[in-house]
Amino acid sequence: MPDEMARPLIRGRGERGGSRCLEASMSDPGAPVVGILGTGDFSRSLARRLVASGYQVVVGSRTPKRSAALFPEEAEVTSQMEAASQADLVFVAVFPEHHSTLVELKPTLAGKTLVDVSNGLRVNLDGPSNAELLADLFPESIIVKGFNTISAWSLQMGPRDGSRQVFLCSDSSKAKSSVMQLCRRLGFIPVDMGLLSSSLEIENLPLYLFPSWRIPVLCTIALFISFYLYNFLRDILQPFVTAGKSVFYKMPIETVNVTLPSVALVMFSLVYVPGLCAAFLQLWWGTKYNRFPKWLDGWLTRRKQFGLCSFLCAVLHAVYSMCLPLRKSFRYKLLNLAVKQVKDRVEDSWDSAEAWRMELYISVGIIALGLLSLLAVTSLPSVANTVNWREFSFIQSTLGYCALSMATLHTLLYGWDRAFDPAQYRFNLPPTFVLVLILPVTVLLGRLALLVPCVAMRLGKVRRGWEKSRHIRFTLPDDGSHNGLEDVSHV
Amino acid sequence: MPDEMARPLIRGRGERGGSRCLEASMSDPGAPVVGILGTGDFSRSLARRLVASGYQVVVGSRTPKRSAALFPEEAEVTSQMEAASQADLVFVAVFPEHHSTLVELKPTLAGKTLVDVSNGLRVNLDGPSNAELLADLFPESIIVKGFNTISAWSLQMGPRDGSRQVFLCSDSSKAKSSVMQLCRRLGFIPVDMGLLSSSLEIENLPLYLFPSWRIPVLCTIALFISFYLYNFLRDILQPFVTAGKSVFYKMPIETVNVTLPSVALVMFSLVYVPGLCAAFLQLWWGTKYNRFPKWLDGWLTRRKQFGLCSFLCAVLHAVYSMCLPLRKSFRYKLLNLAVKQVKDRVEDSWDSAEAWRMELYISVGIIALGLLSLLAVTSLPSVANTVNWREFSFIQSTLGYCALSMATLHTLLYGWDRAFDPAQYRFNLPPTFVLVLILPVTVLLGRLALLVPCVAMRLGKVRRGWEKSRHIRFTLPDDGSHNGLEDVSHV
Amino acid sequence: MPDEMARPLIRGRGERGGSRCLEASMSDPGAPVVGILGTGDFSRSLARRLVASGYQVVVGSRTPKRSAALFPEEAEVTSQMEAASQADLVFVAVFPEHHSTLVELKPTLAGKTLVDVSNGLRVNLDGPSNAELLADLFPESIIVKGFNTISAWSLQMGPRDGSRQVFLCSDSSKAKSSVMQLCRRLGFIPVDMGLLSSSLEIENLPLYLFPSWRIPVLCTIALFISFYLYNFLRDILQPFVTAGKSVFYKMPIETVNVTLPSVALVMFSLVYVPGLCAAFLQLWWGTKYNRFPKWLDGWLTRRKQFGLCSFLCAVLHAVYSMCLPLRKSFRYKLLNLAVKQVKDRVEDSWDSAEAWRMELYISVGIIALGLLSLLAVTSLPSVANTVNWREFSFIQSTLGYCALSMATLHTLLYGWDRAFDPAQYRFNLPPTFVLVLILPVTVLLGRLALLVPCVAMRLGKVRRGWEKSRHIRFTLPDDGSHNGLEDVSHV
Repeated sequence: MPDEMARPLIRGRGERGGSRCLEASMSDPGAPVVGILGTGDFSRSLARRLVASGYQVVVGSRTPKRSAALFPEEAEVTSQMEAASQADLVFVAVFPEHHSTLVELKPTLAGKTLVDVSNGLRVNLDGPSNAELLADLFPESIIVKGFNTISAWSLQMGPRDGSRQVFLCSDSSKAKSSVMQLCRRLGFIPVDMGLLSSSLEIENLPLYLFPSWRIPVLCTIALFISFYLYNFLRDILQPFVTAGKSVFYKMPIETVNVTLPSVALVMFSLVYVPGLCAAFLQLWWGTKYNRFPKWLDGWLTRRKQFGLCSFLCAVLHAVYSMCLPLRKSFRYKLLNLAVKQVKDRVEDSWDSAEAWRMELYISVGIIALGLLSLLAVTSLPSVANTVNWREFSFIQSTLGYCALSMATLHTLLYGWDRAFDPAQYRFNLPPTFVLVLILPVTVLLGRLALLVPCVAMRLGKVRRGWEKSRHIRFTLPDDGSHNGLEDVSHV
Repeated sequence: MPDEMARPLIRGRGERGGSRCLEASMSDPGAPVVGILGTGDFSRSLARRLVASGYQVVVGSRTPKRSAALFPEEAEVTSQMEAASQADLVFVAVFPEHHSTLVELKPTLAGKTLVDVSNGLRVNLDGPSNAELLADLFPESIIVKGFNTISAWSLQMGPRDGSRQVFLCSDSSKAKSSVMQLCRRLGFIPVDMGLLSSSLEIENLPLYLFPSWRIPVLCTIALFISFYLYNFLRDILQPFVTAGKSVFYKMPIETVNVTLPSVALVMFSLVYVPGLCAAFLQLWWGTKYNRFPKWLDGWLTRRKQFGLCSFLCAVLHAVYSMCLPLRKSFRYKLLNLAVKQVKDRVEDSWDSAEAWRMELYISVGIIALGLLSLLAVTSLPSVANTVNWREFSFIQSTLGYCALSMATLHTLLYGWDRAFDPAQYRFNLPPTFVLVLILPVTVLLGRLALLVPCVAMRLGKVRRGWEKSRHIRFTLPDDGSHNGLEDVSHV
Repeated sequence: MPDEMARPLIRGRGERGGSRCLEASMSDPGAPVVGILGTGDFSRSLARRLVASGYQVVVGSRTPKRSAALFPEEAEVTSQMEAASQADLVFVAVFPEHHSTLVELKPTLAGKTLVDVSNGLRVNLDGPSNAELLADLFPESIIVKGFNTISAWSLQMGPRDGSRQVFLCSDSSKAKSSVMQLCRRLGFIPVDMGLLSSSLEIENLPLYLFPSWRIPVLCTIALFISFYLYNFLRDILQPFVTAGKSVFYKMPIETVNVTLPSVALVMFSLVYVPGLCAAFLQLWWGTKYNRFPKWLDGWLTRRKQFGLCSFLCAVLHAVYSMCLPLRKSFRYKLLNLAVKQVKDRVEDSWDSAEAWRMELYISVGIIALGLLSLLAVTSLPSVANTVNWREFSFIQSTLGYCALSMATLHTLLYGWDRAFDPAQYRFNLPPTFVLVLILPVTVLLGRLALLVPCVAMRLGKVRRGWEKSRHIRFTLPDDGSHNGLEDVSHV
């Protein structure tokens, strides 16, 4: 029989190879019994991990003989009926479209806990969830939803590389507790998500594709395209149209390199706009107990993503800039300038103002990039976890405004006196650096306005819970924490 | 009534928007009851999270009607007295200065567990802590301190982005256990900090501002200013004073770029000084059981911070260097050189030694920076957690010394034979690269000394617990681990 | 007595210094009693941490008087016999070679739980483990293996900086459970590894030196050396041998900088080879239930390491490139070119094709590097933990293939039309860029083949569990998860 022949290939000590193997060499006979229905990748990895953590595992398969070869030696592979009857806790690792094939087990599974690990194929916002459908199929069993966010991969490798959370929900607290305990013994961190009605949310979790990044990324792309076209018009089309000079070679690098810092600066300003809006709204309302409009709430929660998009553009700008002198076009221009200087018999071409301008704006730009890098590093989850609230707000607010000021100064120094030079207004369009300065300068002025003592005091009062409309004493804020959302809108 | 009108804005399914919502649609009636006193941001986020994790929540407010709109539908908002009487576990989320307003609840709260989540406004080293004051106010209740390090923000978003630890302490093990269990069900990781006397420490935790970074950052700044002034004197003031040559344009970039590598090299050497000191002290004492002086202990624990400051300077140095050819001043000088070369009729200006020197020191510098980057990446908490002790010590010690050797070699190659050129000693001051070589060369020689077989053997013996002063057999070290502090001082 | 004199130095409040101190000021008298045998660094840190978490600690020492000074005030330091008799849970923190000195405690320790925290000195593949030897010595005690992966350092500092996992195993579920609970109270995350037979594996864990990095790093080094020699032959030796032109100065930078991108591109292609092999094997077999050959399994699990090695080479290539115009040799060449141009009376040396080629390949190269950086950042454990399976596979597969295409395009643009220029075939050897294009182009074509609708459909069917050899309905896959290994081989 081929199944029998396949076995030695699949099991046995030699198989373990160099990888760190988790299996205990034999299952503990007194250990709790856990059932698994289904023989796919997930079932196999789950069985392996359960065995390794000291559980007795019974796998229910439609073709137990054939499937046995795929499971660790210590797991018992038997019929679905047999597995369902042996265990009190049964994992249902069957495609949801085949859940109905399990109905014959209904009497056997009555009163037992079924863990539904299934996932949907696409985000399902309307319900019902797979788990709820399973609960309808097995009304006498207790359904726990969970483990769907865990991959077979991390089950097999063990949760060593990082703390993996398992989101669980069920209408029975007792069943949930026992699954949570199992979770912990496998080395995962269970998170209680409440009643089974949360299962839809849990099933959708692994299906989202960067929901919080969508707007910031679209924003970056839109800004990039607009600024690119604008710069193309001014820097490439204008000389071509007016003087017939072809400088199309600038498209891949130079135009990109003028566009990137513009995007970076605008995106970075957009990080600080919602916090200012929130502060001014609270001042206007005279209370912190009004809800912000939805767009503002959404913006406040996406500031990190805006900041990281800005950081990416800033880094690319730095790399593009540093590649400028590498280019053949740079070399040709330099050589032609040298020839021209020899021809014109100029011994010293030194222009002190130009030299100073460039030294200054490069230096300030590097400092801005350095500060931005610190902000980016502290956005890493593991670093963010090691700083406390005061440290986090120091970095994101104080260092952040320093970085914004430096980036603005970098642009101002780059502009120098050229904003007042009519030759820069090709096609009557102002240079990009003039346009992009509007937003950051406004943000910095708004921030300065909040630092004016009387404004700052009033805002402070509002954030400690004072309200304009109420002066009765006993309605004073009863809030015991300074670690709250108020500080988030404070930044 | 305005309260009633506000409701639909605040609650209801539509409100949930795009954010991943945690609320279960209704609370489990058989679930444990948790009380919350206070209606601030923290209370609201806590209520939301508790409801989502299947708890019944009773919020005590002075103005229940008005506050109800701010809480999830499933939470019951009632008077403080009512909330206090319904729950056995009560969160006190009231500003500590208003704790005294709760005294009327004293009889109701007797025998119940109060969780104090309050924070101080500034670091309090003398005590008593808020929790201890609360315990004095409610002597018949059991006080548990905790949750103050958690922000309303991460309560609301759920602990998904990283494992958040909750530090708890209490004089009652039972009360602490039940709060720890609640903690786990919310998805946080409780850390037992012992008795209520630890509450001062716990309250101070979120108020520190990078205590371990203070000395390394101050050290970096002090070194930067000293070296900058020294270089300013030698490179800018000297030509101005002696020859009237104005090269002040070098201040923003070139002088900074000579200063940064000096700071980086000295700071990086300082990472390895305390380890060497510790080793030599242990050799001198002939035992590892003596405590190191306090300054050495402090230095040993701050080596990572010293290393990261050094890394920042090294990266900035690299960026500044790569920006050098971008500058207008670079271009002017090159053009003037070309004109001069044409005028002097020199066809080939190639200087082989100079070319080799520069190729070599740039290449070695890049390698040093690459090694430093590996060290920096493994300093990230999440990466450090995935390596075992042997791997960590391989990177920090072996790779670290390689990086130090490369950085020293980079400086030596940069210096080439110029240390022996009297023209370099302007104002009789030695060039910076001579000064900064002293410390790393000493460190490398010290490290080599420890590799001499007889020294290495003796140190090994000391670190396995051998003592010079004792030769009796049975006092041999009874230490079962090689994962200890000895290895820390070993680096 | 010297011991008595040493005390004030070692204990007392003043000692605590600035570091965040964990100790409770006095131990809870009703707290559980934990014993520790041994007085080394590990014992001391463990005692400190246990006391801080509210345990009563009894330390057994051969020289209790002298050792007492090394332990926190709250721990009782007494004789080994006394400690063994007082506690039911005893940590054995004695070097394994001295385990035998504890035999006299055998009757006292009977029925108690011994936690063996010892480590080996080198990887031990044959067994028996220290814990198994200890179990042989104390057959009447229950042995739990664990804590050996935790350093004295992280015990002392507390597990604040990252979630530290403690791997435990034992033949007794009850004893294991109680140690797991202790683990959690100390703030660590216990991971159940099954029976005591796993102790060998646990003891080896801290002794491995980057096992998963060995092959990728060796591969990188081998490729680097081969390409370096090849380039040395073509670019340096050939001009020297044929024309007597010495360009050995190119060795440290230019040759390295031609070698690095070759290694990076080949290594990056190797990331995608095993996934393609797996897909074609599955298509060939017509089933996903066959095991892959061992080499392929190993390769699949090491793709991340291959990718990061490639990333390192790519970054170094970028840095080397950006340093090119810094070099004296670059300046000399430029000056000589200028002189030549003046002499030849060429006013404009502009070569449009060359300029375009360079602008394009630099721009594409930067984009490739940007994409690679995104891949590298999401390889960080803490970032990888925050993305769900769909996001992870989007980044690693979609973005990854984009990066590979860009890197290939970068090389193609660099090559331009020079692949057909006989002058490039020095010594009849093709230029490196021709050689390194073979693999990535093959990979990209293979990937395109899998996108052909009929192939894609068949592969999809196979991965949902369809099998060529079976057409009976009820053997359809019963796998409820899309979060499985199939996707891993899908990339």
